Amino acid sequence: MPPYSKILTDSSQGFSLKEWRFDSTEARDDSGKGSWSVTKTCLAGGRQEGTEIVDIDNGVLKFVVVPTRGMSIWGGEIQDIRLGWDSPVTEVVHPQFVDLTDRGGKGWLNGFGEWLSRCGLESMGPPGPDGSQVLTQHGRINYLPASYLEFRFEPEPVPRIVLRGVVEESFMFGPHLQLMTEISTEIGSSELVLNDTVINLADIPQEMESLYHINFGPPLLGAGAEFHAPIKRVAPRDARAAEVDMAKWNLYTGPQPAGYTEQVYFAELWADQQGATQALLQSPDGQSGALVAFSTQQLPYFTLWKNEAPLKTGYVTGLEPATSYPFHRAVERKAGRLRKLAAGETHEATVAIKALLTGNEVQAAVQRINDLQRESPQVETKPMDEA
Amino acid sequence: MPPYSKILTDSSQGFSLKEWRFDSTEARDDSGKGSWSVTKTCLAGGRQEGTEIVDIDNGVLKFVVVPTRGMSIWGGEIQDIRLGWDSPVTEVVHPQFVDLTDRGGKGWLNGFGEWLSRCGLESMGPPGPDGSQVLTQHGRINYLPASYLEFRFEPEPVPRIVLRGVVEESFMFGPHLQLMTEISTEIGSSELVLNDTVINLADIPQEMESLYHINFGPPLLGAGAEFHAPIKRVAPRDARAAEVDMAKWNLYTGPQPAGYTEQVYFAELWADQQGATQALLQSPDGQSGALVAFSTQQLPYFTLWKNEAPLKTGYVTGLEPATSYPFHRAVERKAGRLRKLAAGETHEATVAIKALLTGNEVQAAVQRINDLQRESPQVETKPMDEA
Amino acid sequence: MPPYSKILTDSSQGFSLKEWRFDSTEARDDSGKGSWSVTKTCLAGGRQEGTEIVDIDNGVLKFVVVPTRGMSIWGGEIQDIRLGWDSPVTEVVHPQFVDLTDRGGKGWLNGFGEWLSRCGLESMGPPGPDGSQVLTQHGRINYLPASYLEFRFEPEPVPRIVLRGVVEESFMFGPHLQLMTEISTEIGSSELVLNDTVINLADIPQEMESLYHINFGPPLLGAGAEFHAPIKRVAPRDARAAEVDMAKWNLYTGPQPAGYTEQVYFAELWADQQGATQALLQSPDGQSGALVAFSTQQLPYFTLWKNEAPLKTGYVTGLEPATSYPFHRAVERKAGRLRKLAAGETHEATVAIKALLTGNEVQAAVQRINDLQRESPQVETKPMDEA
Repeated sequence: MPPYSKILTDSSQGFSLKEWRFDSTEARDDSGKGSWSVTKTCLAGGRQEGTEIVDIDNGVLKFVVVPTRGMSIWGGEIQDIRLGWDSPVTEVVHPQFVDLTDRGGKGWLNGFGEWLSRCGLESMGPPGPDGSQVLTQHGRINYLPASYLEFRFEPEPVPRIVLRGVVEESFMFGPHLQLMTEISTEIGSSELVLNDTVINLADIPQEMESLYHINFGPPLLGAGAEFHAPIKRVAPRDARAAEVDMAKWNLYTGPQPAGYTEQVYFAELWADQQGATQALLQSPDGQSGALVAFSTQQLPYFTLWKNEAPLKTGYVTGLEPATSYPFHRAVERKAGRLRKLAAGETHEATVAIKALLTGNEVQAAVQRINDLQRESPQVETKPMDEA
Repeated sequence: MPPYSKILTDSSQGFSLKEWRFDSTEARDDSGKGSWSVTKTCLAGGRQEGTEIVDIDNGVLKFVVVPTRGMSIWGGEIQDIRLGWDSPVTEVVHPQFVDLTDRGGKGWLNGFGEWLSRCGLESMGPPGPDGSQVLTQHGRINYLPASYLEFRFEPEPVPRIVLRGVVEESFMFGPHLQLMTEISTEIGSSELVLNDTVINLADIPQEMESLYHINFGPPLLGAGAEFHAPIKRVAPRDARAAEVDMAKWNLYTGPQPAGYTEQVYFAELWADQQGATQALLQSPDGQSGALVAFSTQQLPYFTLWKNEAPLKTGYVTGLEPATSYPFHRAVERKAGRLRKLAAGETHEATVAIKALLTGNEVQAAVQRINDLQRESPQVETKPMDEA
Repeated sequence: MPPYSKILTDSSQGFSLKEWRFDSTEARDDSGKGSWSVTKTCLAGGRQEGTEIVDIDNGVLKFVVVPTRGMSIWGGEIQDIRLGWDSPVTEVVHPQFVDLTDRGGKGWLNGFGEWLSRCGLESMGPPGPDGSQVLTQHGRINYLPASYLEFRFEPEPVPRIVLRGVVEESFMFGPHLQLMTEISTEIGSSELVLNDTVINLADIPQEMESLYHINFGPPLLGAGAEFHAPIKRVAPRDARAAEVDMAKWNLYTGPQPAGYTEQVYFAELWADQQGATQALLQSPDGQSGALVAFSTQQLPYFTLWKNEAPLKTGYVTGLEPATSYPFHRAVERKAGRLRKLAAGETHEATVAIKALLTGNEVQAAVQRINDLQRESPQVETKPMDEA
């Protein structure tokens, strides 16, 4: 059986399908891996007026891709586990209602509620001037609508759903970066995979930053939850992060009272010979988790964001592999961590997120992380912003 | 006969009815109070592309509610009296065309043409930094689209049209305030009533400001028009407002030549034992007026905005009950006038606007105001911003 | 045969036709000048979601008017000649995705890809404070949607397509300027004409700036292309523009390597007794060109923008007749070049763009320019920003 594909949006043809559905029945999928469906709709009401989303249900794992928001992933669920968090922002806010320059360049936060959002591509990190430029927080890719969207069902070798999107980040006297993402999931699996390629379409070099902001609240986050990764070196971002006993930087204590401020840790990870590594959020009871797998060759810098705020005020943790740390771009440039793409050059990144549904799966993931831990971790106590 | 209700917008279900109508015939309203109708439409053309409005005609009073603009009221009319003013902004501008950070944080003015707009909820007043935050003029509630909209017709005890709206003002690392408004009018009446509840949905305390910007141009405004209210204390906002003879601060002189600058007065009002008070704009001939009734317990600070500019350049006056004065939020905080909501706490405000259509009605309103005037008003000449 | 007309958008009636077409068959045009068509569509996908365009094909010349973007002209073509350029911005970006305050007030560039865009009307030039105001680059008219749009076909005296548009640039405590444009082309001609009227609808005076940003890339631009105009006086804008040998300021050298920075020249032109003048971009082989005709009485200041950047990074030149130079408005005011409209006053400008398709046509245009060149040009070497 040949693959089935359908173009859902193509700005070069001026069109976008607003309502569309495809499922295992229509696909005549007789793999026996269960019924699945892919549904594109256009939301209405409030700040989500006009937001186009694609609901993907592979039979086991469900998640929502948002072409209108840079092919981010709003949320997911598997069995009784919610993948995502409770942001004060409950609607999938359309970019028309977001002004990135708002709140001193922190307008990015006005729509922040995703399970997975990308920061970048021209820059990410805090707002502020960088030479003659004025950057806004976390860049613009998360608020740019996809110019191209294509669905694909591949029956072989393993039945697989693929959503391809193209997002253009370009302006005159600015970068011309293009994100091509392929978000895929095998039918009946507990994993989704992002295959991203960023290309510099200009014929001059262009700096580029990319961070995957993968965020979890309850039930995976809670008092007793733990973060695991093969740490080569870890440091608190700032004095606030350094307040904690660094022996416990990876442990979660549950929602804290009003007045709590976020704590952020920067790390380099060990990987195998091919660069493959993984980071784990383990649930409080150790019976479930979320595993983020990526390559340190593609994404060499890792951030752990702990925001153990009160429950209704953005209680969340973020596992964030990236091309650099989310300091201001000028800092990253000076530190030699800033990626620069030559004319026509690409940067690729594969990120897989897998839900772990049993204690055995969690322990196997921890074991794999321990295996990667070649030497003892170098744990800094001095804040990195004082370096 | 039971009430009739219809949900018109519900972002949690991803839907919004763009075109809808209900009227007295369909309601089988046999109250004999006349024919009425409620019509929801979506505007197109110019900067109002996509703006959803609800035209309400209770048989006597007509007015236009704008769910897309925070449940504000664009304009009204009753008999030959226009309720509203002539702004340079003639279209019901959609938020997609408004950038609040524009013009040094004064982008709010880019769509300002309403009869009644709300300022707030995180802040109102002039733009500028407040600690590490950067505020824009008059906050954002007036440019946030309603997440929920419901129409209700209640035949008893008095036939009444009700429009319920919910507007969310939330972002990550920011407030999570929700406005629930109920805008109602009795069939055949000359009055509309706002019942507003603002709730702090976060589990941390949150400052809140709310001002009702109720604006009038001709025919109610003109040379000889008068403002009446039971003044406890009144002061000019600044040196400009203090230029006038303070014995005449409440009198209108008609449109002034080019070069005119607005004059603003801040007042506290007397009220009855329950806090009920009222403020009146009396037409030049004394035969009509607009009466704004509210509670000083809910809205203790009152602003009179006189903008006697040339006719085509925003000739208007505003009657503005509020939780504080429209100084910068930092000023209001320091002055002890800033409301702070505990986690889950609500702030309620009821504001009624009634058109007075005869000299007798006007005189009765003036008499009621005189009755409330327990002591002589304390009239300051010193500008309040020099305090 | 009477003219045919059709209103396509009218915000005062709350409506806009999204899809519409009219052509020579429907018009029963028996002029024998060929078949023509006018098509209005609404784009979708990417940042052009919701952008309304009008494709005009007069049988020979095709061009695309964008009502959603201030009646600008996105691009054109005639025979094998593309009229326009290759911007990094390939989509006709909708204003909802553009924030003019972005990038330090340079958000205008986020959607800049037009063949012809207007800069103004309240101001144009670089961003920055002007007294208590904060200006953004090139003003807002290019991102304001038309409130009124009307098509007209006039069979006599010469069959002609006319598109009329009205764009409002207004806000409270700001200007109330209205652009009325009539974009017309005769059937079978190689020319289009803009008849623009800007009116100050306020009853107070209002400053106004207007620049026609007419942009060309290949094939008209390339190594060996030449700019011709009857120069009265020309000066480099700044030190960068002065780097070139001023004997060659009007010659093009082809795309330059990475690191190239734009070069801009400011000029006053000779005109005939009625003020008529013209400027020419001549193709590298001298066999084609684009001729821009206008009046120095209406548009006394001319800018030549040379951006010989690498091909994929915005390689383009702009011929830009204007009411002033594109220095900051405060500079233009001080230099006495700033137009001020009295209450109700209008400013009119007619700009015709003609494609020249043979060497003979090009030579005739050069000859006409030489005839207008009454005296030798005064070529300054000192940068004008050092004056």
